Amino acid sequence: MAVSSFQSLPGFRDFLPRDFAVRQYLQEMWRATARRHGFVEYETPLLEDTGLYLKKSGGELSTQLFRFADQGGRDITLRPEVTASLARLAADHQRDFPKPLKWFEIGQCFRYEKPQKGRGREFFQFNVDILGESAAQADAELLAVAIDTMRAFGFEKDDYQVRVSDRQAWADFAAKRGLNAEQLATFLQIVDKLERERPEVLEEKLSALGLQLAEVKEFIANPDNASENYRTLLADLRARGLGEFVRWDLSIVRGLAYYTGLVFEVFDAKASMRAVAGGGRYDTLVSTISDGKIDLPATGFAMGDYVIRNLIEETTHALMQMEVWLQRYQAGCDVYVVVDHEEKRAEALRLVTDLRTAGISVDFPLMPMKFNKQLQRAEQAGARFALIVGNDFPQMKLKILATRSDATVDAENIIQEMIHRIHRPDGPLLA
Amino acid sequence: MAVSSFQSLPGFRDFLPRDFAVRQYLQEMWRATARRHGFVEYETPLLEDTGLYLKKSGGELSTQLFRFADQGGRDITLRPEVTASLARLAADHQRDFPKPLKWFEIGQCFRYEKPQKGRGREFFQFNVDILGESAAQADAELLAVAIDTMRAFGFEKDDYQVRVSDRQAWADFAAKRGLNAEQLATFLQIVDKLERERPEVLEEKLSALGLQLAEVKEFIANPDNASENYRTLLADLRARGLGEFVRWDLSIVRGLAYYTGLVFEVFDAKASMRAVAGGGRYDTLVSTISDGKIDLPATGFAMGDYVIRNLIEETTHALMQMEVWLQRYQAGCDVYVVVDHEEKRAEALRLVTDLRTAGISVDFPLMPMKFNKQLQRAEQAGARFALIVGNDFPQMKLKILATRSDATVDAENIIQEMIHRIHRPDGPLLA
Repeated sequence: MAVSSFQSLPGFRDFLPRDFAVRQYLQEMWRATARRHGFVEYETPLLEDTGLYLKKSGGELSTQLFRFADQGGRDITLRPEVTASLARLAADHQRDFPKPLKWFEIGQCFRYEKPQKGRGREFFQFNVDILGESAAQADAELLAVAIDTMRAFGFEKDDYQVRVSDRQAWADFAAKRGLNAEQLATFLQIVDKLERERPEVLEEKLSALGLQLAEVKEFIANPDNASENYRTLLADLRARGLGEFVRWDLSIVRGLAYYTGLVFEVFDAKASMRAVAGGGRYDTLVSTISDGKIDLPATGFAMGDYVIRNLIEETTHALMQMEVWLQRYQAGCDVYVVVDHEEKRAEALRLVTDLRTAGISVDFPLMPMKFNKQLQRAEQAGARFALIVGNDFPQMKLKILATRSDATVDAENIIQEMIHRIHRPDGPLLA
Repeated sequence: MAVSSFQSLPGFRDFLPRDFAVRQYLQEMWRATARRHGFVEYETPLLEDTGLYLKKSGGELSTQLFRFADQGGRDITLRPEVTASLARLAADHQRDFPKPLKWFEIGQCFRYEKPQKGRGREFFQFNVDILGESAAQADAELLAVAIDTMRAFGFEKDDYQVRVSDRQAWADFAAKRGLNAEQLATFLQIVDKLERERPEVLEEKLSALGLQLAEVKEFIANPDNASENYRTLLADLRARGLGEFVRWDLSIVRGLAYYTGLVFEVFDAKASMRAVAGGGRYDTLVSTISDGKIDLPATGFAMGDYVIRNLIEETTHALMQMEVWLQRYQAGCDVYVVVDHEEKRAEALRLVTDLRTAGISVDFPLMPMKFNKQLQRAEQAGARFALIVGNDFPQMKLKILATRSDATVDAENIIQEMIHRIHRPDGPLLA
């Protein structure tokens, strides 16, 4: 395929029209769901001062940065995620808005990772956050968005699962056993790898903290350890009719250091158990970014485009819904104007312009083309109608491409006619 | 404002909700116009091999690049424009699509320039291109998009002007005077600066090519020098009813070296005469990018977001249209559910969920809040309706915020009621 002397960079996607349409589908569903829940959209810059990311994540992402010096010698980085920028924005502008802020962003992020199936060096991420409300009711509202996002893509109850945990429960566990803050951080890293690491390795790491694997597993297994915040969250979700989508699972802790309370992940319910989305409370981040000047509790989640797209493509009912959307979205035009007699091209051009001015999407052959080839183009473009300008103009033939049926129409009332047909394709002829 | 210990980089914008909404307005108008003309959307990567840009533009942009080495040592650049990537894509994939390709892209570009009013280091650009058709009818179709874009923003005939020229006319002029290809390039650079440079400087530069300023000005002033392609273009636009928007102006040559034929700029008609958009033929670029393997004539134009936004804000009728759009778009929700009695919160949560599931945008207080404050929130969010859940539930009061009128509604048929009211706000009560 690579005819040009240049190739796209590894891990970077060319969005050809079909891929672009899929991307639009994901983003339009994200946008519509967030807006339905009363969230407003913003976007932070693609490039930021590198220090912002280092300060936020404590260096966890620092090995994967697209980081460089600009022409003015600034140390800058292509955003690996957006929460750090959001915290900066919130610290600077929170007083201009009533609290809580319910904000979302859809944007591209960049990480220098090994490109592989289901992961590139760029990806789009849907970020949904509530800032300025510390109660678990805010987390419930976030989870409602996460669940409704899955519904919007056509996923059913058995397709996915939301697993919720609370870092505070682990903080209490650690405090009772005399661990300090630094040891708690180490401990949470161990819990994060509980399902992936060999028992011997876990046992060794835990014993360095004076703990045993058995007591950790026992703590996880006991449902009585569900935190007060989780109980509040669950009661709220049950009132909404969404209780059945979530379950308590202390093995979820989320990798990043900045989470402070309730955390959750949305999982693909199939064997693979991929995380489709994840998030949680980060009550101290805005304070960290503002050197303690602004104290704004916050909770949020993110969903990337790679995993959700793969999951849709593997799930028949979700895929069928997407295909219906794509078919409509990808149509290059509603009406294809066929120029059957070149002597009538001027009339055809005027007609094309008038239809477009009326808001109808129209395509036509820029240069002379055989009749049958024009009809083929109409079908390739996904047009619903072909309007044939021939010798009888202002009388024209209208072909309904799906049914292959014909009607005779007149240029004088064609705008009204086409608007009527496009909005009510089953409607009677006006002509 | 800067409370956080970090600032955004110079020339990079934070899109707070209001600015984001303006950006959406511009992009939605761009997208709708292009789609109405039968163009399909794609997007090229934000980062490319630096060589792609150097090869295309002959180094003209090379001093303004955000260029760096990635962790793998690749010389990569944040895109300063998208045409080079489009040429790469077209060379690699053109055989998968019927010709001509009518493609558009809306994307962010990056140039390391001095930030000033009306120019940043990042900007959004609307790129519209037709590839695979060498006739001037393709340029006419492009100009139709450019003109309709201005109309879509509410600009009237007197607000702007499209000035069209043809590099071929200058090539003929130069050939008659014995100039070679290199001298022609130098000459076009001089013509490009005709309106900005002092006559003495121009005279000196021209004399080095054996030319005089008078003969250049005379050539520009003579309408008989309009090229054959321009005549074809004008006839096509006249048939469309768009002839009055364009005029021939040989002083337009466009700065970049890769243009080969018809070129044009859309100007703000006020004294400032800013270029709002510009473009033209680049028939050899795909061949250059593919080392001669693919020969695909092309024409295209671009419009950036800075100038058009300023022009809208300075033009009353265009600004009013935008404000109407923004008011509707910025509404945080259609319905604000007021929780008047906390004992009914569970019922309110269920109602919120059911309304959202029906596709209605809903917000509500996450935590207990005074009645009047809730109504204030409803208005701040731009809600059209406040639905009050109180002691009489399932009977509720519905407040229409614009008219301050009330109605009593019942939870049993509230979904139907609200869908009806939102789509026909003047409709009678169903309850």
